[in-house]
Amino acid sequence: MKPLNVIKVGGGVVEDAASLASLLDQFAAMEGRKVLVHGGGRLATSMASSLGIESRMVGGRRITDAPMLEVVTMVYGGLVSKNIVAGLQARGVRAIGLTGADGDVIRSHRRPLKRVKTDDGTEQMVDFGFVGDVDKVDARLLMKFIEEGMVPVMAPLTHDGEGNILNTNADTIAGSVACALAEHYDVTLTFCFEKAGVLRNADDDSSVIPLITEEQASRLIADGIISGGMIPKIENAFSAIHRGVRQVVITNSEDVRGKNGTTIKR
Amino acid sequence: MKPLNVIKVGGGVVEDAASLASLLDQFAAMEGRKVLVHGGGRLATSMASSLGIESRMVGGRRITDAPMLEVVTMVYGGLVSKNIVAGLQARGVRAIGLTGADGDVIRSHRRPLKRVKTDDGTEQMVDFGFVGDVDKVDARLLMKFIEEGMVPVMAPLTHDGEGNILNTNADTIAGSVACALAEHYDVTLTFCFEKAGVLRNADDDSSVIPLITEEQASRLIADGIISGGMIPKIENAFSAIHRGVRQVVITNSEDVRGKNGTTIKR
Repeated sequence: MKPLNVIKVGGGVVEDAASLASLLDQFAAMEGRKVLVHGGGRLATSMASSLGIESRMVGGRRITDAPMLEVVTMVYGGLVSKNIVAGLQARGVRAIGLTGADGDVIRSHRRPLKRVKTDDGTEQMVDFGFVGDVDKVDARLLMKFIEEGMVPVMAPLTHDGEGNILNTNADTIAGSVACALAEHYDVTLTFCFEKAGVLRNADDDSSVIPLITEEQASRLIADGIISGGMIPKIENAFSAIHRGVRQVVITNSEDVRGKNGTTIKR
Repeated sequence: MKPLNVIKVGGGVVEDAASLASLLDQFAAMEGRKVLVHGGGRLATSMASSLGIESRMVGGRRITDAPMLEVVTMVYGGLVSKNIVAGLQARGVRAIGLTGADGDVIRSHRRPLKRVKTDDGTEQMVDFGFVGDVDKVDARLLMKFIEEGMVPVMAPLTHDGEGNILNTNADTIAGSVACALAEHYDVTLTFCFEKAGVLRNADDDSSVIPLITEEQASRLIADGIISGGMIPKIENAFSAIHRGVRQVVITNSEDVRGKNGTTIKR
């Protein structure tokens, strides 16, 4: 199967012009088939604030009420997506910006009330509002775009098929797209975040663990070396690998090609 | 050649939930190949105002400075486009929202300084800012989408190939797309606006002139029956017809199928 890279970049990278330009340079220089998945949460928060709309988070996740849905639809689907697409076109990449609604490429359902641990340690039932949990990705349509020489740029928005746009976690979009495409390509899924990779010492960016297999991961978690927010990232990585993705790379956004991060493999 | 409808709807229709729903019902019910081009100017103006950004217009056209470009990119490319797309998906239409940057489908250049008659009747050189004049439409790509069963939903945004999104008049987008597709389809171009069509009496919506040929148009203009803002609309219609569009329909947004408006033909 032909190789394909799915690269996920967070909201921090896309809000700053210089870091966005560097990201787009790197992404454009990557050979072969590729998909970019972007966040935009920080820009959404600042746009909401400019509009006098309060951003409410529970357990690190945004509550998306109707006014906030308008903001994320504008910011993710419009401002961030179209600036990335125009920037990639200028670099010779035939990008196409997509939400899940476009071409019905990602269908989701609105998340039901969920029991969540809040920041003060108590549990409560939370209505996340217009938030989507992914049901299906149309891999055939994405393939058509890709084989036509286009590069899908995916915003963290899906739709429920009943006319509603739903706010959807960008990591989830990246994982779902990578898994759906893994039937047709040899997929590497790269998550770019603020750290250099999975670290032996959380405060030392030079302590990147270059390779983690499933067996090693269990040991690193048992030994407390992998802890906190890194555990779900590792779990999601293996979940993607079990669903056919060849490898997952966790690295920072200065390293889109994943040369210096952590590679996670079966 | 197969028939294809290009329908342009203005910003007034898309900002109101009830009129948008009615528009989408009508558009979804249209058989055959179709493209929707939307505006969004009124929503952009109100969003800009909520953000404390002043909307400046000269001769009926918006000045698009950098803050306003952010607003129109968000509103046209995000909020309006994605809500239309999700709404059409709910009605069984496989819509895909596009700006000119997506797939490089419409390339433009930034409008140079232009001599414009201002509202007080004087002339001045105006910098419209980030406004694009269309250079080319990739009809081949639009055809791919259309023959794949998708329905392009086009926002009034293009790009210059150098990384800039440019604000572009929605009537111009509709005309350019219709002309480009006229090489491959038998195109009807419909402009939905606030009046019922070209009227004999501007104040009487029942005085629609059902058919106007080029010869008749010259006479109606000479006789002062067609005047003011309707003259450029008629000129644009014939310009599209000379570039291969079969007919242009001018009607109101309650009549997307153009049964009761004015048909303009060679």
